[in-house]
Amino acid sequence: MSKAKTAINPTREENFNEWYQQVVKKADLAENSSVRGCMIVKPHGFSLWENIQKDMDSRFKALGVKNAYFPLLIPLSSLEKEAKHVDGFAKECAVVTHRRLVQDGDNLVPEGKLEEPYVIRPTSEMIIGESFSNWINSYRDLPMKINQWANVMRWEMRPRVFLRTSEFLWQEGHTAHATEKEAIEMSKEILELYRSFVEETMAIALIVGEKTESEKFPGADITFTIEALMQDGKALQAGTSHYLGQNFSKAQNIKFLDSDSSEKFAYTTSWGASTRLIGGLIMTHGDDNGLVIPPKLASSQVMICPIFKKTEEKEAIENFISELRKDMSHSMFFGQKVNIEVDWRDMRGGEKYWDNIRKGFPVIIEVGKRDLEKGQVAFTRRDNGVGNKEFIKTADFIKRIGDELESIQDNLYKKSQQRIEDSLVDINTKEEFENFLKAKHSPLMLGKALLNDCDEVRNILSDHKMSFRCMPLSEKEGEYSCLISGKPVVKKVVFGQSY
Amino acid sequence: MSKAKTAINPTREENFNEWYQQVVKKADLAENSSVRGCMIVKPHGFSLWENIQKDMDSRFKALGVKNAYFPLLIPLSSLEKEAKHVDGFAKECAVVTHRRLVQDGDNLVPEGKLEEPYVIRPTSEMIIGESFSNWINSYRDLPMKINQWANVMRWEMRPRVFLRTSEFLWQEGHTAHATEKEAIEMSKEILELYRSFVEETMAIALIVGEKTESEKFPGADITFTIEALMQDGKALQAGTSHYLGQNFSKAQNIKFLDSDSSEKFAYTTSWGASTRLIGGLIMTHGDDNGLVIPPKLASSQVMICPIFKKTEEKEAIENFISELRKDMSHSMFFGQKVNIEVDWRDMRGGEKYWDNIRKGFPVIIEVGKRDLEKGQVAFTRRDNGVGNKEFIKTADFIKRIGDELESIQDNLYKKSQQRIEDSLVDINTKEEFENFLKAKHSPLMLGKALLNDCDEVRNILSDHKMSFRCMPLSEKEGEYSCLISGKPVVKKVVFGQSY
Repeated sequence: MSKAKTAINPTREENFNEWYQQVVKKADLAENSSVRGCMIVKPHGFSLWENIQKDMDSRFKALGVKNAYFPLLIPLSSLEKEAKHVDGFAKECAVVTHRRLVQDGDNLVPEGKLEEPYVIRPTSEMIIGESFSNWINSYRDLPMKINQWANVMRWEMRPRVFLRTSEFLWQEGHTAHATEKEAIEMSKEILELYRSFVEETMAIALIVGEKTESEKFPGADITFTIEALMQDGKALQAGTSHYLGQNFSKAQNIKFLDSDSSEKFAYTTSWGASTRLIGGLIMTHGDDNGLVIPPKLASSQVMICPIFKKTEEKEAIENFISELRKDMSHSMFFGQKVNIEVDWRDMRGGEKYWDNIRKGFPVIIEVGKRDLEKGQVAFTRRDNGVGNKEFIKTADFIKRIGDELESIQDNLYKKSQQRIEDSLVDINTKEEFENFLKAKHSPLMLGKALLNDCDEVRNILSDHKMSFRCMPLSEKEGEYSCLISGKPVVKKVVFGQSY
Repeated sequence: MSKAKTAINPTREENFNEWYQQVVKKADLAENSSVRGCMIVKPHGFSLWENIQKDMDSRFKALGVKNAYFPLLIPLSSLEKEAKHVDGFAKECAVVTHRRLVQDGDNLVPEGKLEEPYVIRPTSEMIIGESFSNWINSYRDLPMKINQWANVMRWEMRPRVFLRTSEFLWQEGHTAHATEKEAIEMSKEILELYRSFVEETMAIALIVGEKTESEKFPGADITFTIEALMQDGKALQAGTSHYLGQNFSKAQNIKFLDSDSSEKFAYTTSWGASTRLIGGLIMTHGDDNGLVIPPKLASSQVMICPIFKKTEEKEAIENFISELRKDMSHSMFFGQKVNIEVDWRDMRGGEKYWDNIRKGFPVIIEVGKRDLEKGQVAFTRRDNGVGNKEFIKTADFIKRIGDELESIQDNLYKKSQQRIEDSLVDINTKEEFENFLKAKHSPLMLGKALLNDCDEVRNILSDHKMSFRCMPLSEKEGEYSCLISGKPVVKKVVFGQSY
């Protein structure tokens, strides 16, 4: 029996990692650049990031967060302050040592050594902390809620487009508060913001929880996380929100005069999400025909592929589309306008259709001369209808489109949620734990068990390339003990392989 | 007679440069950072940039331009290619030579020398050109229209917030076309886009024109420019659009197979505008009380300052504001929604009022207990009513607000346009030219005359710290000769001092 033809080779089953690279390429999302580990995000890939930004940004603003911009470069002396306090500080960064280039024959060579080298920001934690220290004087200045959309840089030895790149785009939020309670509340609000955005807009189901001690952000009292599950069974950390207590405010001298006239250190939070979300999108919804974009995240929900040879055919289709745009001007899904895009590129019909399938537009309709005569369109739902075009009357298409888009969004989310339900193994005894580790799962599975984050357990997991993902918020707390070490545990923890 | 109190000291007349710095500071727009020449853009300043981005971006997209993202770092070898072709290439850039930091006692020191150093992009011309060369094969791939919003870096010896900073934010557009005609058309469309955005949204009147030979972008066949006039009489280049002919496509090997099966070099354009626009905004509309934001550029057109002491007073004002929001939900100006913001900060009424005046909100209304009883608000128009609060019935305020905002926008534009009319001296003889140079204008003036862009004229202008700004599109072309050198001139050129 011959294999069904797929637009992406290899398939997910044949080689998931290579399938991922091929989707990135065939959906025209991004490519590697001549700078090791740095990617070029192409227009289709960047439109996903723009839509992520737009949606998340409006949610940040609704929480009273304001955007600002801080310098790309950090003086070494600022980093030294930080390095003293934080062991896990990322030191693999790009160091700027010279201030100009001079011509030397055909070559350019660095000249003008800087008195103090700079580092390209691996994060803006330090520089924003310094500003907070300057800006905050009184309780009247609190809460201070700042976010930055920016590029950051950390050399990556094993780069992988969107998932691990030396330069990446992200948002980093930093807030300072007068009380512990308010700061913890803030870090939870952001966790909920990340959850609702990723689940509702990106249609990616999540395990929402708290990191165990060893997996926490260095310097954080609590690290909250959203963990998604990829189709190969690996987990992907998709966003983190840290409650930092007074650790950073003490290191960075963020003090305020409280209403009782006493001087106090502020309570701070920080939180971030990055272009990695696009990697998560690909590996959650992508199939053997390429990318699949949930309607709420797509710039265009409907891609129209006109099929024509002669000029008069083209004109007839242009008229049809301008009518369709008018008729659809009130079409909505989830209270949102339906955007239509037309692919006028000069290429063969089949080629054009499959290119838009690979790019993942939620609904694709083809219109040719014969369709116009019959008053119909050839309709494809990207989530489950590829290759099975349905010919439907244009009037019916207009009636149905809102429902179809809502159904696609729901369907993608449910599939992703079902995957978590099917992949998460509840483990209750030492024997079950050992059997779980021994089993050759394909796709991989996640385990959930009472385990203490101690060397003994971490080493066992590490031998299986696994790590603690999080303690889900939904798990019941109690006075339990670890299945392996017998040490105290407050709740079950999810573990598995991860990106 | 004692001087009237102003919120900004010194006034524009006393010391324009220092006035500028004080507005930046007192309007809470930005501040210098610990990295020489790099600024921190604070939330109020960044909101201006966000609004500039949002408006310009939608105009780019309407022209079929797509956003993408290219690496921050450029390998030296790519720059060398460019340096061979372009003399004016900016070599004052930040050079990355090492890949990590290691701890040495309390200090961090650079380690791991890179085989090939990188430069932080001073522009992405080269790296986008390389991509175009890879992406473009056939005439079917054209036109290609790419834009990038990014940070760039060029060491600045005399930094000045927003006007000249080592790191700045900008957009750079790059397009490739199959024909010269189409590429020139594109560069003109962008010029018109810049003009309409800056004049209509930012309310800044412009002189729109073409750069003379020596002022062109290195490598460009034509450089179009929009030039604004600041209140001190200096010109500010606010955006440029370059038609690059085949110069860059030849240097970067951007070729395509045309429909006639012959291989051709593409015709390219590039164009950019930056955070410098915010500097232009300050120096065009700002007054001795601080920043003035045109309504179309403001995030909030109406800033409400509640005045209250007791809790029950606050509650009454909260109720009033929530009613007002409802009543104003359909208020519009120029077809745009009126956004209201409330300044609930815990500070004295006068202090709060003046802080919002300095920040430049178009309309400020104050509401206290007595106003509520009388059903009135204290109304201030930022453009001409500071200090002269008008008490008006709330119902009248709601009726009037749309017209008031439109009138503010128009008024700011007209003032700026009048300034150009009053400052631009039409010069028709050598004697007039000499008198113009001798005169001590305060504010400075711009001249417009038949002058050839030759060493002789440039040296004279340079002695007076002046330079050619542009040949206005509105000037009549002909076969003229230079007032000074007698060399041929096609049209009058505007010259003066500039930022």
